[in-house]
Amino acid sequence: MAKIKCIISYDGSGFAGYQIQPGLRTVQGQIENVLARIHKGKAVRVYASGRTDSGVHAIGQTIHFETDNPMAPERWKQALNAMLPDDIHVMETNQVPDTFHARFDVVEKEYHYIVYRGQEADVFKRNYAYHFPYPLDIAQMQQACQYLQGTHDFTTFSSAKSTAKGSRERTLFAVSCSEEGDELTFVFRGSGYLYNMVRIMVGTLLDIGQGKMKADAIPELFARKDRSLAGKTAPPQGLYLWHVTYGAQ
Amino acid sequence: MAKIKCIISYDGSGFAGYQIQPGLRTVQGQIENVLARIHKGKAVRVYASGRTDSGVHAIGQTIHFETDNPMAPERWKQALNAMLPDDIHVMETNQVPDTFHARFDVVEKEYHYIVYRGQEADVFKRNYAYHFPYPLDIAQMQQACQYLQGTHDFTTFSSAKSTAKGSRERTLFAVSCSEEGDELTFVFRGSGYLYNMVRIMVGTLLDIGQGKMKADAIPELFARKDRSLAGKTAPPQGLYLWHVTYGAQ
Repeated sequence: MAKIKCIISYDGSGFAGYQIQPGLRTVQGQIENVLARIHKGKAVRVYASGRTDSGVHAIGQTIHFETDNPMAPERWKQALNAMLPDDIHVMETNQVPDTFHARFDVVEKEYHYIVYRGQEADVFKRNYAYHFPYPLDIAQMQQACQYLQGTHDFTTFSSAKSTAKGSRERTLFAVSCSEEGDELTFVFRGSGYLYNMVRIMVGTLLDIGQGKMKADAIPELFARKDRSLAGKTAPPQGLYLWHVTYGAQ
Repeated sequence: MAKIKCIISYDGSGFAGYQIQPGLRTVQGQIENVLARIHKGKAVRVYASGRTDSGVHAIGQTIHFETDNPMAPERWKQALNAMLPDDIHVMETNQVPDTFHARFDVVEKEYHYIVYRGQEADVFKRNYAYHFPYPLDIAQMQQACQYLQGTHDFTTFSSAKSTAKGSRERTLFAVSCSEEGDELTFVFRGSGYLYNMVRIMVGTLLDIGQGKMKADAIPELFARKDRSLAGKTAPPQGLYLWHVTYGAQ
């Protein structure tokens, strides 16, 4: 048996999310489908760094699977791309030690969230950015990014539907907000995330940009552990799972 | 009755082309559908500068229709956008003289064709550019663009399926090819085009870029009036109807 790690990108627009669900088109479903064909009908389970919701994109999602197929590790890329639909693309494949796990060995995950600020709707961006044509105080938002960094209990910034057991403490190593032309990009680098955490942080940052809340209110938000105090969950199409970092293997 | 001119953009990915066809999702079909609802079920015909094929995009397609609805001309933009699906967007509406015709009054049409040259497939570009990861001689292609400019019989560069009656002479005012990062953009500005003409010119330019043909072979291609001598029809997803120019109204 060999363990194969793959870095994959996908356009989330056509999927009911990453995770396999009966009767729905999912990223995991498409990949397991192809792997079953390669393994003569035998089911091969795929493990990812984590799920992404319906409409959320990935540039560097990472998965692993085990195989008894003797194919050279670097040939898996070509084999999978030849059979996968064109909204999933395998960027890189390589063999990893048996002890590797795409979810449990994550050291850092980076998400980007793109906001399109143009006044006019852009049909080419509707699935790939959040259209938000309102005035924003960028300096306030950048200050708020500083307050989000560090180790905190993120209950206030997670969905009430979150099923995370145990600690709700997570560490954000870096949070930033940068403007280029009519696009605003938020970058989050963190040890891990609660359910909807990035989208709720973005919704809150946009509230702060609109002056509905002050950047320095964030410490109080953390302390209150109350989802209703944070901003709305920003829509999925602006969100990209950008990169997953693992320790030395 | 008022005649309303609209400049519209659409993402061609989800349409079986511009022109209405029974049972298929088309741009014209969606717009006439909305206009019928605004006119209490009465059919309102829409006239465009020309058709675009399935998968072809528009930034500045132009249409007109006649209406007995007393709505202010500038309010049509908002009314249509509120009811149209989000892959069609009306950029601008205004009233035009009764004599205006979106197709017959065209003075110039500008098309762009985008080629993505990265080695790796990009899931986010698959519907919006032609992925062509092969070496190209840009200088040869730019020279070929010069040969395409001017007034010629474009039979060699039109689909055998073309239904154009009368003269196959057209004038290209400007043809260019420019490189930016891993994208190549062809721009065509012309008086009019035969069926598939832009995509066949692009296919031929790419053949020239690959050295399968020389730039200075183009005069001979025009003279022979034989479609089989030109390159393949480049795929639709790289093509954008960019702008339509009308004379002073």
